Amino acid sequence: MQDSGPLTWPIGFRAYTGHGGLREHGDDISVVASDRPATSAAMFTQSLFAGPAVLLSRVHAEGQKLRAVTTLANNANVATGRQGEENAAEVVRRVAGILGVPQDEVLIGSTGVIGRPLPMDTIRAHFDETAEHGLAAFQAAPLDVARALMTTDTRPKTAVRTVGRARIVGVAKGVGMLEPNMATMLAYVFTDAELPPADLDSALRTAVNRTFNCLSVDTDTSTSDTVAVIANGAAGPVDPVRFAEALTDLCLDLTRQLASDGEGATKLLRVTVGGAGDPAQAKRIAKSVVNSPLVKTAVHGADPNWGRVLMAIGKNTDDTAIVPGKVTVSFGDIEVYPEEPEADTLDRLVAHMRQDEVDIVITLGLGAAEATVYGCDLSAGYVRVNADYTT
Amino acid sequence: MQDSGPLTWPIGFRAYTGHGGLREHGDDISVVASDRPATSAAMFTQSLFAGPAVLLSRVHAEGQKLRAVTTLANNANVATGRQGEENAAEVVRRVAGILGVPQDEVLIGSTGVIGRPLPMDTIRAHFDETAEHGLAAFQAAPLDVARALMTTDTRPKTAVRTVGRARIVGVAKGVGMLEPNMATMLAYVFTDAELPPADLDSALRTAVNRTFNCLSVDTDTSTSDTVAVIANGAAGPVDPVRFAEALTDLCLDLTRQLASDGEGATKLLRVTVGGAGDPAQAKRIAKSVVNSPLVKTAVHGADPNWGRVLMAIGKNTDDTAIVPGKVTVSFGDIEVYPEEPEADTLDRLVAHMRQDEVDIVITLGLGAAEATVYGCDLSAGYVRVNADYTT
Repeated sequence: MQDSGPLTWPIGFRAYTGHGGLREHGDDISVVASDRPATSAAMFTQSLFAGPAVLLSRVHAEGQKLRAVTTLANNANVATGRQGEENAAEVVRRVAGILGVPQDEVLIGSTGVIGRPLPMDTIRAHFDETAEHGLAAFQAAPLDVARALMTTDTRPKTAVRTVGRARIVGVAKGVGMLEPNMATMLAYVFTDAELPPADLDSALRTAVNRTFNCLSVDTDTSTSDTVAVIANGAAGPVDPVRFAEALTDLCLDLTRQLASDGEGATKLLRVTVGGAGDPAQAKRIAKSVVNSPLVKTAVHGADPNWGRVLMAIGKNTDDTAIVPGKVTVSFGDIEVYPEEPEADTLDRLVAHMRQDEVDIVITLGLGAAEATVYGCDLSAGYVRVNADYTT
Repeated sequence: MQDSGPLTWPIGFRAYTGHGGLREHGDDISVVASDRPATSAAMFTQSLFAGPAVLLSRVHAEGQKLRAVTTLANNANVATGRQGEENAAEVVRRVAGILGVPQDEVLIGSTGVIGRPLPMDTIRAHFDETAEHGLAAFQAAPLDVARALMTTDTRPKTAVRTVGRARIVGVAKGVGMLEPNMATMLAYVFTDAELPPADLDSALRTAVNRTFNCLSVDTDTSTSDTVAVIANGAAGPVDPVRFAEALTDLCLDLTRQLASDGEGATKLLRVTVGGAGDPAQAKRIAKSVVNSPLVKTAVHGADPNWGRVLMAIGKNTDDTAIVPGKVTVSFGDIEVYPEEPEADTLDRLVAHMRQDEVDIVITLGLGAAEATVYGCDLSAGYVRVNADYTT
């Protein structure tokens, strides 16, 4: 289902990236736009401290007619007061002017340090110059945009799927402050498929719930999480069910890329809980394991300290239906509980834990519900990256 | 209120420590006992995977007549099946035999790796030898017992308070897998005060709720948390209210020692939330901040990235009564929100964050409830300690 060759935009989309002085080097401003009206769906952080970019974008997303996304990287523009709101609105106004589209069809994302004013002098100079070139400046590929979104990401995240004659292209960023709740850091999906707004919205909600909302790098929910899909219909109508499947598959691809590039991460950690009483319980227990610092450090060191998985299940003290006698725990296909592992099982366990992906599989023996969540190990690199981020 | 000179037991208590082969070097078994009948109160982990030591001690604690506490360090004896239960019972039987007291007046604690059988051969040999010496072996001071409890602790934790003619002596251990829920890792308190069982129980519950239950090193709740107080009345009756105050003060002392010796910790982190709608909300928000890996790493690096405190408040998405406009955040007496800090404020903030204790003070502007919680910074040392704990 994946394209080969360099990744290009779906029909009718174009993009530019540039340097607006938000960081010392490299592109930090991007715009992706459809050349024709489009249908959209979007989800945002539920943080109580959502920033001006999210507050403004929420309003614009309501019309389900977004046709452009602009992003400022390296500054979240959060907790910046009334001036922060005015700055976000000005950026949207300038992007809309360059594209010649209504302001309320532009979504704005902002990601980085909280509590610092945007450097509007250099941002204005950047947009003045871009406006002179107009649409001729729009030569960026998806990979360029993914790069311009990065903060402490070590690699750009892109993904592509096809459904019928349509293509779906996604770009994302996110490494820390990453336990999305109803949406993730920044993930944008562009497609030339034609879909009714309701189908697009439902496809996005299903996909996000099964992918980005099953991701946790560090339990910290960002103030800026945004995920949006824009469908401009240039490739004609598609089957909504197959589109929804392809969108979920693409979002899962991006989720895995986000998890394995978590701050300081050296491994992808996948935790599946089956036999749960209901889906919420499955996800709660799985997140408890994937977020346990002691499980994460054991995975980092390939330390076969499987008892910590039991601890992380057991700390959910409200889940009184869970009883040790019904629980099983495996790493990959290596069962470690309730049968006490033999010495050679521990050797196999260490070998499994040394891989780039570690799978923890838990069954609760209570029902038929299941959930899979994604995370990463906890390394000294996470501490290094975050102990002096602003200084 | 504190004694001077080397710390001794209250009247009528004695202790021994010895090496039972649970670790390579150093004492790993301890017993503290009252020479006369006593009144007791105890609280235990709520983990769904509570081990045999906790299950057995819970039953023994019901009578409120405990007069001895024995502890095995370096092995939690959890997830060890029926054999683990028999081993715990055998240790209690042997300790009761040496002391000549009923088995159901002995509490047993066990702390360390989960999922490994106890080395019963060396433990039996140890108790055989101790039995030969009888009570003559009981020459250990509180500091010796606190040392014999240690796992990855870097220093022993003891505290003492006086109330009237009575003394209260506490010993504790705990560094990781440390977010107690209704009780903490291992904390034992011995007093020669005379109190009715109901007053002792109520004093313990109040103290634990305000101290150990406000502590989190890493969000991971142990399978073995136990806190117990034993009062043998040798110093005569005391005022229950003053006793309760002294007990809370002693437990707070131990809590601060536990927090500042958290695995890899270099600083004590104290978070106070005031102006909350109710005490549960105050504690929930405070724990969200003290547990945020991004706040903890910023504190570690003395990085004045105060926006992360807002993030950690904002991720409590169910607390919709909290609105940014009413919130204030200070570090010590340095306000950072809502007033945007000046450059020299940031310098003062860095200076505050470089101290051994960092204070974050939040007001929500909703009501009059308040809570203070204790934690520590997150360092590369935490990862080092935990990435290869068993190997």
